[in-house]
Amino acid sequence: MLSCAPLGGWVLQPWSKILLWFFFNCKTDFSAETQVAGWCWAACGAGAAWRLSAQILNTRAAPSLVGNPCQNARFGAKATGQHAWPCPAAAELKELEVPRLGHSDVHVKMLAAPINPADINMIQGTYAILAPLPAVAGNEGVGRVLEVGPGVTALRRGDWVIPADAGLGTWRTQAVFPEASLLQVPSDIPLLCAATLSVNPCTAYRMLSDFESLAPGDSVIQNAANSGVGQAVIQIAKATGVRTINVVRDRPDLPKLVERLKALGADHVITEDVLRKPEMKEIFKSIPKPRLALNCVGGKSTTEMLRHLQPKGTMVTYGGMAKQPVTVPVSAFIFRDVRLRGFWMTQWKKDHAHDKESLTSMMDALCQLVRRGQLGAPACTTVPLEDFREALVASMQPFTSSKQVLLL
Amino acid sequence: MLSCAPLGGWVLQPWSKILLWFFFNCKTDFSAETQVAGWCWAACGAGAAWRLSAQILNTRAAPSLVGNPCQNARFGAKATGQHAWPCPAAAELKELEVPRLGHSDVHVKMLAAPINPADINMIQGTYAILAPLPAVAGNEGVGRVLEVGPGVTALRRGDWVIPADAGLGTWRTQAVFPEASLLQVPSDIPLLCAATLSVNPCTAYRMLSDFESLAPGDSVIQNAANSGVGQAVIQIAKATGVRTINVVRDRPDLPKLVERLKALGADHVITEDVLRKPEMKEIFKSIPKPRLALNCVGGKSTTEMLRHLQPKGTMVTYGGMAKQPVTVPVSAFIFRDVRLRGFWMTQWKKDHAHDKESLTSMMDALCQLVRRGQLGAPACTTVPLEDFREALVASMQPFTSSKQVLLL
Repeated sequence: MLSCAPLGGWVLQPWSKILLWFFFNCKTDFSAETQVAGWCWAACGAGAAWRLSAQILNTRAAPSLVGNPCQNARFGAKATGQHAWPCPAAAELKELEVPRLGHSDVHVKMLAAPINPADINMIQGTYAILAPLPAVAGNEGVGRVLEVGPGVTALRRGDWVIPADAGLGTWRTQAVFPEASLLQVPSDIPLLCAATLSVNPCTAYRMLSDFESLAPGDSVIQNAANSGVGQAVIQIAKATGVRTINVVRDRPDLPKLVERLKALGADHVITEDVLRKPEMKEIFKSIPKPRLALNCVGGKSTTEMLRHLQPKGTMVTYGGMAKQPVTVPVSAFIFRDVRLRGFWMTQWKKDHAHDKESLTSMMDALCQLVRRGQLGAPACTTVPLEDFREALVASMQPFTSSKQVLLL
Repeated sequence: MLSCAPLGGWVLQPWSKILLWFFFNCKTDFSAETQVAGWCWAACGAGAAWRLSAQILNTRAAPSLVGNPCQNARFGAKATGQHAWPCPAAAELKELEVPRLGHSDVHVKMLAAPINPADINMIQGTYAILAPLPAVAGNEGVGRVLEVGPGVTALRRGDWVIPADAGLGTWRTQAVFPEASLLQVPSDIPLLCAATLSVNPCTAYRMLSDFESLAPGDSVIQNAANSGVGQAVIQIAKATGVRTINVVRDRPDLPKLVERLKALGADHVITEDVLRKPEMKEIFKSIPKPRLALNCVGGKSTTEMLRHLQPKGTMVTYGGMAKQPVTVPVSAFIFRDVRLRGFWMTQWKKDHAHDKESLTSMMDALCQLVRRGQLGAPACTTVPLEDFREALVASMQPFTSSKQVLLL
C-alpha cells in the first residue's frame, strides 16, 4: 500500500493539473550514509517517464527507507543537507497528461481534497509509509466520475467517489484510477463532508466502535478535541448518546472554541491543566468515568488523561502531536488494568481489504449521520488548487482551527 | 478482599505462633494530614480484642488509605515520622490462641510460606490493598488440615491446602480458616512447590494463556527472568514448546545465572544492554519475534524490550521493579499496533471468584507439570519462623537469586 501514487510507467493522455512531491523533507538527523540512500531511493522512484525539474534541496529520507536503498538511481542530484521547511518548497504544480482509460479504470474529475496532518507527515518523510518520488500527494478527497472503462461494474458517469484507501494521490484536477481503489458516496451530501469523510470520521467511528462496547450514558475522554477526528468523535458520540469530555490546549480564543465544540455536542470542554485539578471531580458527579480515552497527543497530556479512565478501560492512541511518548505508571496496568491500544485507519483498511461489507456499512452509517445533520464537515477553509502553498503553510500553523481544503 | 488477615473479634483458643505487622512502613512522603489519617486507620484496625505492645515508629500510610481515615481510634500513639526501614522492625512474633473451629471452618497446621515481593510491599504500605493492623502477613503457603468443622464438605484431615486468594495471613504455625478461603492441592508434590504454587506459577500460567494464543514454536520475551514468575514462565513455556528470550540484569555471577536459567529450559538469556545491540538479530534468525512480552521492570528495559515485539503483539506488565513508568513511542501504538495490558493475580482471582472451575483447572495443570518434573519450585532458602528477621532482610537484597521460605 503506497502513501502517494507513483506516476512512472503510465501512458499519458489529456491534461490534468497535479501537485507533485519531489522529495521527502524530513527534520530528523541521519548519518551521511542514510542521506545518500534516501536520495537514491527518492530519485529513482521517478522512473524513466519522468524528469526532475526542481532542484533537490533536501533528500533526507525517513528511517523506514534506509533498509531499501535503490541500486539504480537514474538521476544525479546534490544533497545540500539544508532543511527546506516549511515544506511547500518541496511541491510543484504541474500540468500532465491524464493516463488512458483501461478496462477496469475510472476517469475522475476531482472536486475537493483536504490537507490532513498525515499528508504533511508524508511530505516530511516522517510517515510510516512512503512512495517512490515524485508522486501525487493527498490521501483524501472527493471526485465525480467522468467516464468508466468497459469492465467497470459498480460505478457510472456522475457518481461521486472517494479513495477506498490511503495513497491515491488526490491533489489533482483529474485522474484515472482503478475501480477497486474507489468507493462510491452519495452525491446528496455536502461536498466538504464527502471530501473529508474517509479519514477523520472513519477514524472516529472505528475508535468508538472497536475497542469498548459503549452504551448510551457511557463517557469518552479525548485530547486534541478540536482536530478533525476530535470533532467527528464529539458528533458521533452525541448521536449515540455517549458523553464526551474534550481536552484542548489553552489558547487566546478559548471561549470561542469551547462554544464551537459545545455547539457540535461536546458535554465538557476543558484545558489540559484542568486534568489535574479538583474540577474533574465535579464533572464526574454528573457522568461516569470514561471507559474509553482517545489520545492524539502523547506526553504529559496523555498520562494525565489516563488517570481518569475507569479500571479495565481502554486508551487508544492514534496520533502524537506533542512528539512525546506515552508514559504510564506501572500501577495503572497492574492495579487498574488499563489497556493501551493504537489505531491507524490505513492499517484497518488493509486488514479489511477483503471485507468490503465492513467498509460500506461504516460509510453508510456515516452518510446517514450526515443526512440527519448529526455529522458535519469540520471547520474548513476552501482554497483554489493554485494557492496550495498558502494552504500548506496555513495547515501547519499552531492552534489551527480550520482544515484547509483544496478546490480542484 | 483484604491483603492481611485482620484478627479483631476472633475468639481465641489453643496457641499459635503468629508473625504480626503492627504498622505500615512506607518510604513515600505524605503530608502531615495524611500521616494522621494513616495512623488513625492503622491503630483502630486492631479492634477491641487487641492491645498494641510495640512502639509505633512510623505510621505513614499508603495513599489508598487516605480516603478512609478512621473516626474511632482506640489507641493513642505518637507518629515520629522516622523511616523504620528495613521493615523487620515493624514485625513481631507472638504466641496467640487459635480461634475456635466454626461450622464451616478448617483448622490448619501451616507447613511453609514464602516471602514474596508483594508481602514486602504490603508491609511497606505501598501495595494496592492493605488490611487493618495489626494483621498476620503472608499471602502464600501450604498447610495440612488438622480438623474440619461439621459443615465442611470438600476437605478432610490430612489434606494439603493453599490459600484460594491473597490476604489469608500465612506466616503462622496454625490457623482456623473458612473452608471457602482454601484450595486443596495434592500432597504428593514437593513441599516447596506447594508452598510457592499459588502466586508465581499461577501468574506465569495466566500470562502465557490469557493474552495471546501461543502455539509451539512461538516465542515470548520477558525481563526479570530470574524472578519467581520468570522461572515459572521459562518452565511452563518450555513444557508447551514456546521459546523464551530472557532478560536479566548484568551481575558478577552472570554465567552461573545464565546456566541455571538454561537448565530450566530458557532458550536465550541476555542482559538488558543486549536489547539494543545487533546480537538481537542473531536470535531472531532462529526463532520468530515474540508475540508476547512480560514486563516486571518498567523504565528503559521495558521500552527496549517492546521494540522486539511483533506487530499486534501484547506486552503484559505485572511488576515495576525499576520503580519507573512504562514509556512507549506513539508510533509503536499507531504503526505497529502493539497492545499494552496489565496483570495482577489477586484481581484475576477476584474476577473469577464464582468460577471455581477456572482456578481448579489451572491448579491441576500446574500440579501435572510439577509431577512430570517440568515445573519445580524456584531456588529457595528455607528459614525457621523464628529467624524471620534475617529472612526478611535477605529477601530485600539486590540480585537475590533465592526465595526465602519460612518453615512453620
